[in-house]
Amino acid sequence: MRILGIDPGLATLGYGVIEAQSGRMKLVTAGAIITKPDQKTPDRLVSIRRDMRDLLLAYKPDEIVFEELFFAKNITTGMNVSAARGVALCTCAEYTDQLFEYTPMQIKQAVVGYGKADKHQVQQMVKMILGLEKVISPDDAADAVAAAITHANTGYSKEQFRMK
Amino acid sequence: MRILGIDPGLATLGYGVIEAQSGRMKLVTAGAIITKPDQKTPDRLVSIRRDMRDLLLAYKPDEIVFEELFFAKNITTGMNVSAARGVALCTCAEYTDQLFEYTPMQIKQAVVGYGKADKHQVQQMVKMILGLEKVISPDDAADAVAAAITHANTGYSKEQFRMK
Repeated sequence: MRILGIDPGLATLGYGVIEAQSGRMKLVTAGAIITKPDQKTPDRLVSIRRDMRDLLLAYKPDEIVFEELFFAKNITTGMNVSAARGVALCTCAEYTDQLFEYTPMQIKQAVVGYGKADKHQVQQMVKMILGLEKVISPDDAADAVAAAITHANTGYSKEQFRMK
Repeated sequence: MRILGIDPGLATLGYGVIEAQSGRMKLVTAGAIITKPDQKTPDRLVSIRRDMRDLLLAYKPDEIVFEELFFAKNITTGMNVSAARGVALCTCAEYTDQLFEYTPMQIKQAVVGYGKADKHQVQQMVKMILGLEKVISPDDAADAVAAAITHANTGYSKEQFRMK
């Protein structure tokens, strides 16, 4: 089973693909779709869509997991991040209906064992779980891989995390 | 010059197309893309994208005008409306770079002459300006047409409303 994790964002959209088979997990790829603030928002959305499509076609995931958005900051940032998430969601939904979503807290709980773990702890645990030589960067890519690991470990109860 | 106005939303995305030539305006079409709450959000986004594409191909607008989003309500609604706006924006940006945006207040000011006009007043003025026999409904379609009218009347100063 191949799982794509996504940590949505307009400036940085983290992604990570793992292969999970009978309790064993292997990293396939991880990275980030980056768009520049000097581009117009509509153009940034188009480039996210294009890169997401390339990702889906290149890695052909069986299931896709989003990290849920969480807003503490300002509403304009929230709107743009939501727009990017919408474009990513739409592109993924054209490809498959196997879409799931976990909150940041559920992911940290599953990967680190502590819902309020920091970025550094998530990166370290992802490295350990997947037996990597170094941590995945940027943070957003590590978070996306952590989402995929969470989903792989959720097993039979995963239906409750299916996107509504 | 053919102008497409859009009032973004997840449940109801209003649209209206006008033909504007040397100060005269004519309604080409107006309506709404509706998605049902019993559909999953990703599927609603896919159907908005598909309907938006059909709209662009059918009416071939020269310029596209969005009504800016405004959030007073809850953050979850805001996220989903922003996601729908993102998908609509992305679809339009693939079609043209002639994208503009006005706030609800700018549109009401331009069409009714009063920035805090209500839905009913906007519908009545749109009807009058375009010489229609009855008001455009739903509200969201009338709002979208009002956005297009605003843009047609903005003339040479429209560059300041170009989407960033």
